[in-house]
Amino acid sequence: MTRAMGVVGGKWKPILIFTIGAKRVRFGQLAHTVNLISRKVLTEQLKELEEDGIVIREAFAELPPRVEYRLSAHGLGLLPILEQLCQWNSARPPAVGAP
Amino acid sequence: MTRAMGVVGGKWKPILIFTIGAKRVRFGQLAHTVNLISRKVLTEQLKELEEDGIVIREAFAELPPRVEYRLSAHGLGLLPILEQLCQWNSARPPAVGAP
Repeated sequence: MTRAMGVVGGKWKPILIFTIGAKRVRFGQLAHTVNLISRKVLTEQLKELEEDGIVIREAFAELPPRVEYRLSAHGLGLLPILEQLCQWNSARPPAVGAP
Repeated sequence: MTRAMGVVGGKWKPILIFTIGAKRVRFGQLAHTVNLISRKVLTEQLKELEEDGIVIREAFAELPPRVEYRLSAHGLGLLPILEQLCQWNSARPPAVGAP
């Protein structure tokens, strides 16, 4: 459990995974969409997600160089779980203890 | 998404939620079961989980005083999602990038 949370927990990773979704996105698009994240933190988070096998980074031998990010099969498998987590959270009872 | 991760993310909360599960547990049982957590951190985490409506703390008017923790209905709704997250994580491909 701790391992799973370590892989997808934290402030940015779930949002990045959600934002990439089933698409291919560029660094600039991510930096623009996830607007409060710094480029430095975005670089680090993408690197960690890549190391954990959740994101695939593809560099194209073109000029100017083109780099795209997409979710791996394993990363795609996380989307429905994150979706459920969002639904669970939006069904949250008001702050006073629920019965 | 960030809100959901804020509520259940982090190192201890998922383990505490899992450990409580569908049972009623005492502070001492939790401190014993989740062995690397300090009593101070356990107290703080339980308080946050209570404020977020995930855990219900029940104090019984007895001598010596008895306090029990259980998951609220909302908290119980999280168990299957955490279960899926564990399964997802155990299906993780080896470190080399998955296709």
